[in-house]
Amino acid sequence: MSKIPVAIVGATGLAGQQFVAALAGHPELVITQLCASARSAGKRYGEALRDDRGALHWYCQEPLPDVIAAMPVVDAEALDPKGLGCIFTAIEAEPARVLEPRYAAETPVISTASAFRYDDDVPVFIPGVNHDHTRLIDVQRRNRGWRGFISPGPNCTTVGLALTLAPLHAAFGVRRVIMTSMQSCSGAGRSPGVVALDIIDNVVPFIPKEEDKVQIETRKILGALAGDRITPADFPVSCTCTRVPVLEGHTEAVFVELARPATVDAARAAMAGFGAELLAQGLPSAPRRLIAISDDPYRPQPRLDRDADGGMATTVGRLREDPALPNGLKYVLVSHNTKMGAAKGAVLTAEILMRKGYIGK
Amino acid sequence: MSKIPVAIVGATGLAGQQFVAALAGHPELVITQLCASARSAGKRYGEALRDDRGALHWYCQEPLPDVIAAMPVVDAEALDPKGLGCIFTAIEAEPARVLEPRYAAETPVISTASAFRYDDDVPVFIPGVNHDHTRLIDVQRRNRGWRGFISPGPNCTTVGLALTLAPLHAAFGVRRVIMTSMQSCSGAGRSPGVVALDIIDNVVPFIPKEEDKVQIETRKILGALAGDRITPADFPVSCTCTRVPVLEGHTEAVFVELARPATVDAARAAMAGFGAELLAQGLPSAPRRLIAISDDPYRPQPRLDRDADGGMATTVGRLREDPALPNGLKYVLVSHNTKMGAAKGAVLTAEILMRKGYIGK
Amino acid sequence: MSKIPVAIVGATGLAGQQFVAALAGHPELVITQLCASARSAGKRYGEALRDDRGALHWYCQEPLPDVIAAMPVVDAEALDPKGLGCIFTAIEAEPARVLEPRYAAETPVISTASAFRYDDDVPVFIPGVNHDHTRLIDVQRRNRGWRGFISPGPNCTTVGLALTLAPLHAAFGVRRVIMTSMQSCSGAGRSPGVVALDIIDNVVPFIPKEEDKVQIETRKILGALAGDRITPADFPVSCTCTRVPVLEGHTEAVFVELARPATVDAARAAMAGFGAELLAQGLPSAPRRLIAISDDPYRPQPRLDRDADGGMATTVGRLREDPALPNGLKYVLVSHNTKMGAAKGAVLTAEILMRKGYIGK
Amino acid sequence: MSKIPVAIVGATGLAGQQFVAALAGHPELVITQLCASARSAGKRYGEALRDDRGALHWYCQEPLPDVIAAMPVVDAEALDPKGLGCIFTAIEAEPARVLEPRYAAETPVISTASAFRYDDDVPVFIPGVNHDHTRLIDVQRRNRGWRGFISPGPNCTTVGLALTLAPLHAAFGVRRVIMTSMQSCSGAGRSPGVVALDIIDNVVPFIPKEEDKVQIETRKILGALAGDRITPADFPVSCTCTRVPVLEGHTEAVFVELARPATVDAARAAMAGFGAELLAQGLPSAPRRLIAISDDPYRPQPRLDRDADGGMATTVGRLREDPALPNGLKYVLVSHNTKMGAAKGAVLTAEILMRKGYIGK
Repeated sequence: MSKIPVAIVGATGLAGQQFVAALAGHPELVITQLCASARSAGKRYGEALRDDRGALHWYCQEPLPDVIAAMPVVDAEALDPKGLGCIFTAIEAEPARVLEPRYAAETPVISTASAFRYDDDVPVFIPGVNHDHTRLIDVQRRNRGWRGFISPGPNCTTVGLALTLAPLHAAFGVRRVIMTSMQSCSGAGRSPGVVALDIIDNVVPFIPKEEDKVQIETRKILGALAGDRITPADFPVSCTCTRVPVLEGHTEAVFVELARPATVDAARAAMAGFGAELLAQGLPSAPRRLIAISDDPYRPQPRLDRDADGGMATTVGRLREDPALPNGLKYVLVSHNTKMGAAKGAVLTAEILMRKGYIGK
Repeated sequence: MSKIPVAIVGATGLAGQQFVAALAGHPELVITQLCASARSAGKRYGEALRDDRGALHWYCQEPLPDVIAAMPVVDAEALDPKGLGCIFTAIEAEPARVLEPRYAAETPVISTASAFRYDDDVPVFIPGVNHDHTRLIDVQRRNRGWRGFISPGPNCTTVGLALTLAPLHAAFGVRRVIMTSMQSCSGAGRSPGVVALDIIDNVVPFIPKEEDKVQIETRKILGALAGDRITPADFPVSCTCTRVPVLEGHTEAVFVELARPATVDAARAAMAGFGAELLAQGLPSAPRRLIAISDDPYRPQPRLDRDADGGMATTVGRLREDPALPNGLKYVLVSHNTKMGAAKGAVLTAEILMRKGYIGK
Repeated sequence: MSKIPVAIVGATGLAGQQFVAALAGHPELVITQLCASARSAGKRYGEALRDDRGALHWYCQEPLPDVIAAMPVVDAEALDPKGLGCIFTAIEAEPARVLEPRYAAETPVISTASAFRYDDDVPVFIPGVNHDHTRLIDVQRRNRGWRGFISPGPNCTTVGLALTLAPLHAAFGVRRVIMTSMQSCSGAGRSPGVVALDIIDNVVPFIPKEEDKVQIETRKILGALAGDRITPADFPVSCTCTRVPVLEGHTEAVFVELARPATVDAARAAMAGFGAELLAQGLPSAPRRLIAISDDPYRPQPRLDRDADGGMATTVGRLREDPALPNGLKYVLVSHNTKMGAAKGAVLTAEILMRKGYIGK
Repeated sequence: MSKIPVAIVGATGLAGQQFVAALAGHPELVITQLCASARSAGKRYGEALRDDRGALHWYCQEPLPDVIAAMPVVDAEALDPKGLGCIFTAIEAEPARVLEPRYAAETPVISTASAFRYDDDVPVFIPGVNHDHTRLIDVQRRNRGWRGFISPGPNCTTVGLALTLAPLHAAFGVRRVIMTSMQSCSGAGRSPGVVALDIIDNVVPFIPKEEDKVQIETRKILGALAGDRITPADFPVSCTCTRVPVLEGHTEAVFVELARPATVDAARAAMAGFGAELLAQGLPSAPRRLIAISDDPYRPQPRLDRDADGGMATTVGRLREDPALPNGLKYVLVSHNTKMGAAKGAVLTAEILMRKGYIGK
């Protein structure tokens, strides 16, 4: 089988580089276009990442493949979406608002931007959680007259929360969610991202817009698609989002009120078995487990657990009864914000949409 | 007025050093005895802190006064409590269980240990919060036949929580409390305390026994003394306590359900005005404000706010409505765990008990 | 005596704020003008530091005085230097190249920029080290036809090195210097400064241009003024400058070859007594000691020693013989890069120049 | 070929665990005995690492193999060395002084302890550097009447230094070495190792005994074996060893005076080609390169480069002329202190000694 050609837009940025890493050597997808701003256009990718002292600003742990480094960078404005199976975008909300519809008129767009995340006809997928929202793509195409579509991923902080709530909601009904996040610095990118002077020996208790995003997205993702729209899940979510001196991996302390009583063992079982159907498909970017349960009281820890299953498994620990909420449970999770929470999660979404016939045929 | 002589037991440890710093130059109290284990006994205090390379293991920001450094260290086992106005103890729970009653038979003991914190006839004071529990000291004396008494301070993580809940409880009634802490490394002391390999680029989501302590103590401190015992406050408290790479200052994300609706402005006013009666007394170790309110969305931060009012003010920020709880409020607080949360807070408690006639006669 | 009016140019930046802190409450100097770019001009200083969420971007430990916050910000381009006793500039090299000569035509300019640091007729002062270079100001005025002059301070990394070499050079003759710095993040400022993702759990072994600056400046500062120019000190200096995860305070490991043998005790005595003449003047910003010697083998440490004497004393420790260099000595120093190494050091230089009649008449 | 049975002594400690990780799945060596103190003896290894809360204190990135976890722990005092091809010891100097000779009477001992490192008849190997010292093993056996021998590895800080000096010494002659290290926290182990309160936002400029070790070992390792003893290399070495807030990987800033002039290119070539003979043997634990050269001015960095070639390659960057030393060169290196610098380096040494017939016959 020949591979499906894809483009990465915003390829020189941190999130774009993560798409490069997530797609390098992919068995079904092949990068044929690397797009960035006009400033980088025309250079080879490897040169575009190099500063005038010769330092290579490549920020992934995985090495930059030579063949990718040698590819030319194309102006994102000039990208012709035709002939591409899919376009991965890693750009800010503002340019996304302009570029993504232009691409989507022709081709599926898998996006990390928030520009269209809250539109009624736009699904926000988390692998294993809400595949039943796929039909909203048809609505979107019909509404907008596009051959392609836009499928934005959720905010990285939403991913671990909604993913771990999903099995609880299915099994016991979620009634109320309170969450405090301790987010890593990579979530803020590098331009300038988190300044060392602000975070060493410190916690910053506010991340602009983050709490609203998580509160709204979680309910949308766990909502039910009825007719042409999603009814958000019928439980309130309250977050306090903070930044801590951690490089990668978001930690979240979650408190949940359930509709029906659940023992800790039953909750553990629901989480541990979650996503079996997805995992059975053996998709290239899928982890062995969507949720890894730890019984070590000191886990999960971002440094030790963020890379579980290549950064694609969310680790849950400290699962215990909550004394303050009816049918209450509480737990701590660690989710890799720039793997499952960003590019690699988006690639897994693309793989799912390929199986469902929305990409590549 | 001549100063009241006091002893510090456990004087060479980290918490004991903080008592030395908190009492150095005190206008009403004077350290006359420094006690430690038999190993240090007989040395001068300054020598007992020095290792065999000559390095001084003094860990407070304040300099070690020469006059204190020259004082002899006495074996804690051999301390004669008679003639002392008060004994400050900074020792582990196990030796506290033996030594503190022995001292309390004669003399008031202000303790940082948890050994007696949960006994029915033992009050746990937070300055400004529960002075009305003072009468429990009389009960304790009567029960135990002591001339002195034991007054342990709360766990350092309880202090900021109970202190900020107190004005809300008084004004609006607290119904439910959910809290996630991001605690500093100094809370674990130095023997060995938090090992760098465990906490750099990391969060550790568990601190043994901490959550139980905070959950129980908060309700005791905010409970009502009726007859000879305290009825714990009638609301559940649920905590997840974590450790973060911060040197000093505990950060807590608090979510509160109230009995009666409170606007953010009303809650802010209740907090900002809290403790006026105490503050009006002008006690030597009292801050200007018990609770400092910040309207900067990025505050409080432990590095920037822990030293507010000499580490004796708790800073509250991000005060806002909580969308997930009835009459819900949420906020973030920073409290200095080794100042207000430990020795300096204990000294302020002693000052209050002096005014009430329980110390110094 | 009425105070001398001064201006701060670049007042909204990190270094400019440090000038504000260093000059607030100064007994002899008073800030009458705060200048910044056109973008801030017209706003009150307190407003210019506030972002659109209301957060105050004031980065000094010292509080921002209300009276300063209320002052209007003036466009640096429009500053009229007349009537000012002195202008402190905290701007980048490029604008400095344009603005500083314009100001210096009328008024003394004390600068933190490197723009004129390497000009033959421009002295680079370190308090206590090279007051005898003051005469170069006369040369500069004559050469350039200015009523004022430009006096740039050295790079922050040079300060501790040249200051500690000065007494060794005077007493024993320096023959060769090898130095490795471990520099704090504040040295890079905040725009964007050091990004957290680059420095947590890391060392960055290169700081652009830093090594050349230190190597050249050290020899200039310790050079001899003969006729109208300085002959650089006749010893080679070799540096490797690195960045470490430290907030404030540069640490430097220094290896020195001397012309004449020096015992460790003799070297310690030379350093400890250094600057007595300057210190005897009792200048407002002067420390008690220029060099504080520590005999604790684990000192100096940046977190513990950077604030010695208000950040104006350089702490030297680990002074010992060097086995690899003839008449070799080695030691470690900590110098506060944004106090003595920047604004506060510049203010002390101004105080010295006031005493010598170069400022304020 | 059947595998050679080996024992690990001190198997439950941090360094011992690293031996477990380095030997798990080894193609030629198989762990048959895990030894520790009497306290752990009798437990299964996996249980011995577990605390009373059930947390597993396994500190390697590599997972603990189930088959190893199930092995019984033997009292190190009771270990019978007969029948073992080799014993790897990861214990403190004091017990090593007793146990290692007892084992060595029968069996080769590859040690990380310093107990015998400085004895005249004991070689200190760095792979690729001083295989010609192997003959000292024969001397040692003869002197001591042992069937086995003791082969201690160098201090972890010595490894990167001596390894990178070796090709320079061979090609150009080293005359003088000055080095400042910025060492990671893992070098201090975990009992208690570096306390977080000491190192966050800090540098500690002293590590007891470290400088002497590096200075002496470097000269021994690069010395010439003549007759029955090594003549230390005839150049002085001066170090300042510091601790920085880095988890793994030692960074060293090196300044070298050479006997003969070397261009930067010639030095780079000598380093890059170093160890070809060793590498050609294709030993299981050998890296692709002993020294990896980086031309990125910002490299090497410990976080980015410590894991080069599985932590077995030393990365050298910033190679440039030194202006202060005759025929001077300077560079920065990063070496993984707990891989090449400890257990995995010791295993590679064992592999070399197997090829030479000293182990396994």
